[in-house]
Amino acid sequence: MFAHNKRLQYSVHVSECNPGLANLMLEQFGGPDGELAAAMRYFTQALGEDDPGRKDMLLDIATEELSHLEVIGTVVAMLNKGAKGELAEGVNSEAELYRAINGAGNDSHLTQILYGGGPALTNSGGVPWNAGYIDSRGDPTCDLRSDIAAEARAKIIYERLINVTDDPGVKEALGFLMTREIAHQQSFEKALYAIQPNFPPGKLPGKAPFSDMYVNTSQGQGDMRGPWNSDDNFQYVSNGDTYQAMDGGDGMPSVQLSGRQKECVQAMQQRTRSNPNGNPTTGAELGGNA
Amino acid sequence: MFAHNKRLQYSVHVSECNPGLANLMLEQFGGPDGELAAAMRYFTQALGEDDPGRKDMLLDIATEELSHLEVIGTVVAMLNKGAKGELAEGVNSEAELYRAINGAGNDSHLTQILYGGGPALTNSGGVPWNAGYIDSRGDPTCDLRSDIAAEARAKIIYERLINVTDDPGVKEALGFLMTREIAHQQSFEKALYAIQPNFPPGKLPGKAPFSDMYVNTSQGQGDMRGPWNSDDNFQYVSNGDTYQAMDGGDGMPSVQLSGRQKECVQAMQQRTRSNPNGNPTTGAELGGNA
Amino acid sequence: MFAHNKRLQYSVHVSECNPGLANLMLEQFGGPDGELAAAMRYFTQALGEDDPGRKDMLLDIATEELSHLEVIGTVVAMLNKGAKGELAEGVNSEAELYRAINGAGNDSHLTQILYGGGPALTNSGGVPWNAGYIDSRGDPTCDLRSDIAAEARAKIIYERLINVTDDPGVKEALGFLMTREIAHQQSFEKALYAIQPNFPPGKLPGKAPFSDMYVNTSQGQGDMRGPWNSDDNFQYVSNGDTYQAMDGGDGMPSVQLSGRQKECVQAMQQRTRSNPNGNPTTGAELGGNA
Amino acid sequence: MFAHNKRLQYSVHVSECNPGLANLMLEQFGGPDGELAAAMRYFTQALGEDDPGRKDMLLDIATEELSHLEVIGTVVAMLNKGAKGELAEGVNSEAELYRAINGAGNDSHLTQILYGGGPALTNSGGVPWNAGYIDSRGDPTCDLRSDIAAEARAKIIYERLINVTDDPGVKEALGFLMTREIAHQQSFEKALYAIQPNFPPGKLPGKAPFSDMYVNTSQGQGDMRGPWNSDDNFQYVSNGDTYQAMDGGDGMPSVQLSGRQKECVQAMQQRTRSNPNGNPTTGAELGGNA
Amino acid sequence: MFAHNKRLQYSVHVSECNPGLANLMLEQFGGPDGELAAAMRYFTQALGEDDPGRKDMLLDIATEELSHLEVIGTVVAMLNKGAKGELAEGVNSEAELYRAINGAGNDSHLTQILYGGGPALTNSGGVPWNAGYIDSRGDPTCDLRSDIAAEARAKIIYERLINVTDDPGVKEALGFLMTREIAHQQSFEKALYAIQPNFPPGKLPGKAPFSDMYVNTSQGQGDMRGPWNSDDNFQYVSNGDTYQAMDGGDGMPSVQLSGRQKECVQAMQQRTRSNPNGNPTTGAELGGNA
Amino acid sequence: MFAHNKRLQYSVHVSECNPGLANLMLEQFGGPDGELAAAMRYFTQALGEDDPGRKDMLLDIATEELSHLEVIGTVVAMLNKGAKGELAEGVNSEAELYRAINGAGNDSHLTQILYGGGPALTNSGGVPWNAGYIDSRGDPTCDLRSDIAAEARAKIIYERLINVTDDPGVKEALGFLMTREIAHQQSFEKALYAIQPNFPPGKLPGKAPFSDMYVNTSQGQGDMRGPWNSDDNFQYVSNGDTYQAMDGGDGMPSVQLSGRQKECVQAMQQRTRSNPNGNPTTGAELGGNA
Repeated sequence: MFAHNKRLQYSVHVSECNPGLANLMLEQFGGPDGELAAAMRYFTQALGEDDPGRKDMLLDIATEELSHLEVIGTVVAMLNKGAKGELAEGVNSEAELYRAINGAGNDSHLTQILYGGGPALTNSGGVPWNAGYIDSRGDPTCDLRSDIAAEARAKIIYERLINVTDDPGVKEALGFLMTREIAHQQSFEKALYAIQPNFPPGKLPGKAPFSDMYVNTSQGQGDMRGPWNSDDNFQYVSNGDTYQAMDGGDGMPSVQLSGRQKECVQAMQQRTRSNPNGNPTTGAELGGNA
Repeated sequence: MFAHNKRLQYSVHVSECNPGLANLMLEQFGGPDGELAAAMRYFTQALGEDDPGRKDMLLDIATEELSHLEVIGTVVAMLNKGAKGELAEGVNSEAELYRAINGAGNDSHLTQILYGGGPALTNSGGVPWNAGYIDSRGDPTCDLRSDIAAEARAKIIYERLINVTDDPGVKEALGFLMTREIAHQQSFEKALYAIQPNFPPGKLPGKAPFSDMYVNTSQGQGDMRGPWNSDDNFQYVSNGDTYQAMDGGDGMPSVQLSGRQKECVQAMQQRTRSNPNGNPTTGAELGGNA
Repeated sequence: MFAHNKRLQYSVHVSECNPGLANLMLEQFGGPDGELAAAMRYFTQALGEDDPGRKDMLLDIATEELSHLEVIGTVVAMLNKGAKGELAEGVNSEAELYRAINGAGNDSHLTQILYGGGPALTNSGGVPWNAGYIDSRGDPTCDLRSDIAAEARAKIIYERLINVTDDPGVKEALGFLMTREIAHQQSFEKALYAIQPNFPPGKLPGKAPFSDMYVNTSQGQGDMRGPWNSDDNFQYVSNGDTYQAMDGGDGMPSVQLSGRQKECVQAMQQRTRSNPNGNPTTGAELGGNA
Repeated sequence: MFAHNKRLQYSVHVSECNPGLANLMLEQFGGPDGELAAAMRYFTQALGEDDPGRKDMLLDIATEELSHLEVIGTVVAMLNKGAKGELAEGVNSEAELYRAINGAGNDSHLTQILYGGGPALTNSGGVPWNAGYIDSRGDPTCDLRSDIAAEARAKIIYERLINVTDDPGVKEALGFLMTREIAHQQSFEKALYAIQPNFPPGKLPGKAPFSDMYVNTSQGQGDMRGPWNSDDNFQYVSNGDTYQAMDGGDGMPSVQLSGRQKECVQAMQQRTRSNPNGNPTTGAELGGNA
Repeated sequence: MFAHNKRLQYSVHVSECNPGLANLMLEQFGGPDGELAAAMRYFTQALGEDDPGRKDMLLDIATEELSHLEVIGTVVAMLNKGAKGELAEGVNSEAELYRAINGAGNDSHLTQILYGGGPALTNSGGVPWNAGYIDSRGDPTCDLRSDIAAEARAKIIYERLINVTDDPGVKEALGFLMTREIAHQQSFEKALYAIQPNFPPGKLPGKAPFSDMYVNTSQGQGDMRGPWNSDDNFQYVSNGDTYQAMDGGDGMPSVQLSGRQKECVQAMQQRTRSNPNGNPTTGAELGGNA
Repeated sequence: MFAHNKRLQYSVHVSECNPGLANLMLEQFGGPDGELAAAMRYFTQALGEDDPGRKDMLLDIATEELSHLEVIGTVVAMLNKGAKGELAEGVNSEAELYRAINGAGNDSHLTQILYGGGPALTNSGGVPWNAGYIDSRGDPTCDLRSDIAAEARAKIIYERLINVTDDPGVKEALGFLMTREIAHQQSFEKALYAIQPNFPPGKLPGKAPFSDMYVNTSQGQGDMRGPWNSDDNFQYVSNGDTYQAMDGGDGMPSVQLSGRQKECVQAMQQRTRSNPNGNPTTGAELGGNA
């Protein structure tokens, strides 16, 4: 069960109305690595989790991410507030209002026209958030790796936003939010390595000899060796040269069909055959330049 | 530049037409952790990569994933082949054909009616693949973590498919594909740790004291301590109790507006005020039961 | 700022593992009228809201909806728990596990294979949640009407789920959740009518005579009159008979182009003209039956 | 059955080619509150409707919305016409053509490059229309409320477009379209209140005492009382303080599992346990700065 | 401007309630080749079209497709009508109602629970319609080819639906709708070939020698020659053997950077280098089985 | 099975960093007519194809399209390379970096902030690629027509990109890619016409008299005759005048319901009837201006 207090987890003080900057901030509100994605990622994992330690941790972090969603959404709302009022009241000239949503450095027309200046759950390009951003699979050795990666991505997006922001209050809030991703990543790392073994993920072992094989499929200038494909760590093969199937078979597919199925498949093949002989006149030839 | 040979990387021998099973296999063809997602994840990273070792590795693995896309897609095509022929020729009765796409254990109507039995780039529930499944961000300390997590997820999906498949040829091909994900994960791990330092991701450091703080936001029965929130590793705080802003401020938002903006915002607020006094009759009351 | 307690807002006691029923419940977890949609609808409105009464109400209800998301998600998790364990451990036969995800009354394969039995943010048909479900526009006379409608929709979906559920613990929790939507609708109604005037929405008045006109565009058997198109309330016209433009003009479009633009448009028209004279041979004719 | 006349319902006279303005207009062509959404919303409701009065009204308004789709789409086509010709003929310099699609106040590159200047069924930010925008649920006490809200939203979007448009012909057509939304809202209101009772929606009554309860979940500075949570109208509770489950139970979830299910769940828990003791070395530590 | 008559373009007489069959019919209501896609494809093309003949034809066919949308949607509504009533009234037992939406041959739970038995703009698998299905590009030599292909696809989907339907009234209506696609295809073919020349599409010619070259990139068992790659029609090359760039260059990419850009790129490369020497311990190794 | 060589199929030499131009290029990387769509369209068709000639051709062209995906993606990477380095290192001022992603002629903020300057699988407006762009239906007389249309669309998009590009190296690579679409279209045309008959698509014939009928549904000023609706080719009817059903019936729908179903439908109708008599007060009236 959740409770809320109207105080933010971090105070937000914005220097001036700046809808163009607001739009960039949406990336961490409704973007794929934003705070809604984070909150829902951990919250849905928590609901399906039976391990008491992980469940508690996931709920702690999910709840904090909701507070972060509030912080970044409030940044957006503050940056848009003046523009929202002007458009709603419509007392400026049309040309002024047009320029205010459609100018160099300020491509905020979608936010203003459709969303009325409110924080919308879209990325910074206007694409609505969708749950396909959440890659929880219900196995902790997968999900914790996904969580670690998600925190890393969120960190880098905040870093980029900090790099393009010169409003000091916005910059400070972004710094706080970025740093919390570092902390969360460390918790998820601890929880992953507190499962032993955690590799390979899941329960089934791999099938020898394929689990330590590296296939050099891209060749030519630029081929490199390193620990990711070294003989120390891998059996290095180049089956792109010989195009041999790895099972030692003929590399061809087959399926056993019933008699009726065979008849139908053959009838279909005959009916739709592209005859390799002859040279039929085509529509393109009817339409080509004489 | 790519080349192709009609031999598969792994031979596919299927025992009988089984569209219901084919549908499950689509998960690794056009699902979020499927082979198209894998191939495109690494291929797009490779195109933007300047580090020669990583670029080569990403191209190697991307190319192999395309060959895996061909293997799993061929499994789907073989499992559907007989049913496709029967529907195309339409010589069975309508009731037989209806049951063939809409029965217990065989919910394959979308695959048959819309996609004609061909392998479609959807997940096993019919949701089309979309590029939001790819979470590449152009920073290797993020992207390699995302790649590690993606391989872990793909491994577990193959494991589940193996658990529900009793066609021996399909099971064998799935075992191969699952194992290759284990190998790829190991390469990505080596490439990540060959960057030093790789944590925190990106370039900006975190802001003390927030990078080692753990916030116990979910309380009550079930609170747990472990290495993910232990005093050894974290400063453990519970600001949900006191609801204090972490910056020490008042937790309130503010923005400085121009005079015109202030006027408009105030006019808007006045115009749209929900008056807290009085008790207006509502539409619901007009429509409620007397 | 949010806080969480591990106690649910409503206790959830489920009689038996039932993944087919779990899937239906997803409708109110990740469906368009589900609890995530509700929570995010009100939360994002709250962030952009300046009216203190509405802001407080929106935060109260948003927070409660998050607790409801937890309740319905927990129902899903409980209904799936046994099946999740069986698939993860893989000790049952393949045929048993296949039937467990793909049978009459239990089309849960997507939930089990992809999401591992965890509550996924999809609707009951597997379509991922997306923020297009949220129709907030930043104007309270619109948004409160949208909120009223959203509560009405959520109520009816819960009613249908109750009608198809015979697990008593699930039924009881659904009854609680359904009832809360009724309460929320009443709050939103009060807040809407506490704005005076609230119709028409926004600030600009309509243009006479079009605001009280009803156009009878669908004719023939079945034409009806009622308060929605009565002469008491509307000017009733049938311009589908005469096809006259309502502005009294010619109903034709025009645009003034520059000289260069005119030249280009004419060149394009000439180049791509479909000649109405003659009878060209077509591709279809090349391919038709002799 | 539909018929069409090439005359528009409202004449469209545009002053000059203006692709930047055209893009804004797309909001009401292919946006969530645009005319396609309106037409399809009422048309699909009509098809499933058995009440003769509502069916007729829905068909009347759906048909008119199709005529509005034609009006707004024609506005887009006129605003783009000159630019379309110039790009198609390619006789201007590359730099001129680049600036024509990618300049301050004119971010129309998607419309020009992909859609060739034709009216595309996207919102003003380029997001394709999708049927998730339509929230019809097959119950008139819900659907009419959704229709009322949809008309309110469409009205406000037109208002904003009018505020940023200074082309007089465009402004006039927008004024007509905006006004018709006001008229439609009034018809839907009459149809809703012609159902008695219409609240609560659907058939099942709410469960006492939850239907008149208001839960104060968001606390602290900013708590307000008004008719939406007044003691006159609601039982006001604050269970966020005590975190008690509203059913009076323990707030904990449970499910009864079969013996085999229990064994599997326990095996899975044991296998994937995050051990709370110890302090494992993590990947992040391997990668951290020394 | 549109008008409507309540008579259908084709009478619809359905033998019995059959929600499972209704779901299949949705494919041509809200699926990618369904009637909404057809109507909107031609309607949006018409709005941007200046050629008078094509504009008239597109409006004729678009309008007819709207009437077809009504026919197929009415089929869905009739097939669902009884089930809708039963679920709405809830007087049958829960188990009966559950089976009615979730049984062998009848996977209609999404249609019933979410859409209340009304015709929803989804495909037969529940995926919402989206405007990405429309591939209009604003050039008639492209768009007419796309229209021809779209009619061909719609024809084949109707053929499959006919093959699985034994309700005579439904079958008859489907036969009518299928046949109209054949007629429309013929009109679009005539309109395409009435443009001369129409190949290659657009205005720019191809660059010799690439326009008549066929590249044999897939080799090995199964290589075939036919008119699509014959020496009569094409220059046949196999650059997959030699991997030579077709421009005769080195096949390598380059870009000229400013001094500052070069410095930054080099700094980034150095900072994020994956060192090919050494063999770092990885997270996977920390988590692997001893 | 695929192999790769690090040489591109066409050398890419870019004159300068230009993220605004890079964004336009994304249209053919991750847009609906881009190279991923092309590659996957033909590759998935190939997997389900049994005709040896078509299968070989589809694999040849699919593989080449993957090489084109690499070429256009490399163009994007080169155009972004300098900007990526500057943002990653963050040594320029915030204002400079902001302008570099958000300026006239350079709306690249999404590419830079979210995707880090790497080639993303989105269209030029930021919309992620999705598999709904692929319209393969498993019937070659449909699929080849769809392939022909797809090549025509891809050609025209490249033509537009060439028209707005003045970087000579980019222009040259685009010219190559555009030309290859012309060649591919010719192969698909030959393969289609090598099937005889290929019209109408599929197996079922049309039903007389509907296959050669043209319905003049859009009337008034602008009606035209041409080969697409001439008496030579079609039976020309105008049933929009008389609104007669084409089957000669009453144009009304019907369904036979069971007794229980009838009772429920009637109860539902009665319960939810919009009473045509009376004039109920509505919510809008409560909220209207006095």
